[in-house]
Amino acid sequence: MSRNSLQSKLAEAQGGVMLFSITPPRRATAPERVKEIAEITVGRLAGLDLDGLILYDIDDESDRNPEERPFPYLPTLDPASFHTDHLGDWDKPVVIYRCVGKYAEPDLRAWLASSAGSDDILTVLVGSSSGTKPVRTSLRRAQQLHREASPALPLGAVVISERHARHGDEHLRMLTKQERGCGFFISQVVYDLNETKNLVSDYFYACRDAGITPRPVIFTLSLCGSPKTLEFLDWLGVEVPPWLATELRESSDPLETSRRECLSIARDLRAFCTRLGMPFGFNVESVSIRKAEIEASTELAREITTLLRS
Amino acid sequence: MSRNSLQSKLAEAQGGVMLFSITPPRRATAPERVKEIAEITVGRLAGLDLDGLILYDIDDESDRNPEERPFPYLPTLDPASFHTDHLGDWDKPVVIYRCVGKYAEPDLRAWLASSAGSDDILTVLVGSSSGTKPVRTSLRRAQQLHREASPALPLGAVVISERHARHGDEHLRMLTKQERGCGFFISQVVYDLNETKNLVSDYFYACRDAGITPRPVIFTLSLCGSPKTLEFLDWLGVEVPPWLATELRESSDPLETSRRECLSIARDLRAFCTRLGMPFGFNVESVSIRKAEIEASTELAREITTLLRS
Repeated sequence: MSRNSLQSKLAEAQGGVMLFSITPPRRATAPERVKEIAEITVGRLAGLDLDGLILYDIDDESDRNPEERPFPYLPTLDPASFHTDHLGDWDKPVVIYRCVGKYAEPDLRAWLASSAGSDDILTVLVGSSSGTKPVRTSLRRAQQLHREASPALPLGAVVISERHARHGDEHLRMLTKQERGCGFFISQVVYDLNETKNLVSDYFYACRDAGITPRPVIFTLSLCGSPKTLEFLDWLGVEVPPWLATELRESSDPLETSRRECLSIARDLRAFCTRLGMPFGFNVESVSIRKAEIEASTELAREITTLLRS
Repeated sequence: MSRNSLQSKLAEAQGGVMLFSITPPRRATAPERVKEIAEITVGRLAGLDLDGLILYDIDDESDRNPEERPFPYLPTLDPASFHTDHLGDWDKPVVIYRCVGKYAEPDLRAWLASSAGSDDILTVLVGSSSGTKPVRTSLRRAQQLHREASPALPLGAVVISERHARHGDEHLRMLTKQERGCGFFISQVVYDLNETKNLVSDYFYACRDAGITPRPVIFTLSLCGSPKTLEFLDWLGVEVPPWLATELRESSDPLETSRRECLSIARDLRAFCTRLGMPFGFNVESVSIRKAEIEASTELAREITTLLRS
């Protein structure tokens, strides 16, 4: 029953979860092209031993950073509609992101209620990208709606180790989210291994001290095949250690350099979480829209899956 | 000619240097016991394929940190006297540290002049442990004395990646030291891999931009077999990443945990420097006076030597 293996792994706070994440096509894409993209994507991912697919919900986020966005923001198809309308060939679960600030309460509540009945949908509710942005629904309110309208819908949250490095309380935010019904966590793109290990360590021992079972953390890895992608990672708030940013800029083959580094980070996190007894998994995404990076991401996912299953 | 291999490797800015460092016995030690310690030490190290031995010069350093020193400060024998009087059986070079602030100019000049004639002595001149401490001779003045009295005596300097993390200019300090005659660098104990790689990267590219050959950097590794040693590392200004400090405190076998971590750091630095084309070496020391940690340090040096020579 691979259809339910993701849900049960997460419900039982097990590790070993392998995900791949995609952004739905741009809203302006012609319908026949959307169909084609969906077919290519499912074909590309069918050969991987994934537990599920993440569908991102893209928000403008221009408030995040006054700097110009290295890749332009273009509105994308609704991830749930993309799933329903075009991913019929994908027979494994999907984790649908929701940038809750975009939605009015009744719409979000209706979507949560309708998804609760499905056996192949999970969701991750994401708060606003800055504290000052006006929101239609706050993350806290969205989590309440989940509890009221769809408590059975598996709920996840985002964790950001860069935030932990700055404020030192991300592990406590995780515990709070857990109290509000979150059963798993998905990280922002990881390039700073130290900060990620600090966060996992603090979270693990805070759970131990509170007598709580730690929930799985799924680490997101993403290749960086060009200086432009490096800029975009920076714009997104991902901290690439200075030595590695330099190495990527100097490299004649940054895609290969970042592949080596992503694998090294995955190996290290795997060993670290295994020693701790911390449930974990991986998610591979491509923050870039370049074809070479997307194809290399599929290969990276294959290698990380082998590592995870070994 | 193993007697001269250390000097020529360093003179030619080659890597592959493997050192072990010891602190001379306490000044209060009975002479026959000093002899015995020297014999045991030489016996312990003879089986290792070292390029040389570092003899530390211990300064009080109570100015470094208002906190109580976890291991008491006890005056130790002069490293040069210990070498002359007791290390006759050691037939490889020694790197003699000099905390220059302790010495009056004429004494330092006389020692430098007398050592320049020896073919088995190198020196590392170390500045004061804080900016406010009154010194008899400043580091800058000591480097001038070296140029005047003993320019042929191979001269090294200390590098501290924690200082780079705070001020971001340690690589420029390295270039300045290099202009003043330093031909190699020995790091403080490394536990923060990221910061160390940032420093090496900045130094390497600053050399490239200036058209200068980078000088070898020798990375110091030290085991941490107990919470007390961890405290001492902290007192010395060594930054152990929080996740690792926690793991060491929680470990039922911190000596083994730190051994695994030291080897992992060494492997990573080796791969990183090799990719860059940066000459490097290793130095193993034991900051602790505990027998188990000293013995395990010998084993670590054996493993690191194998790694370096492989």
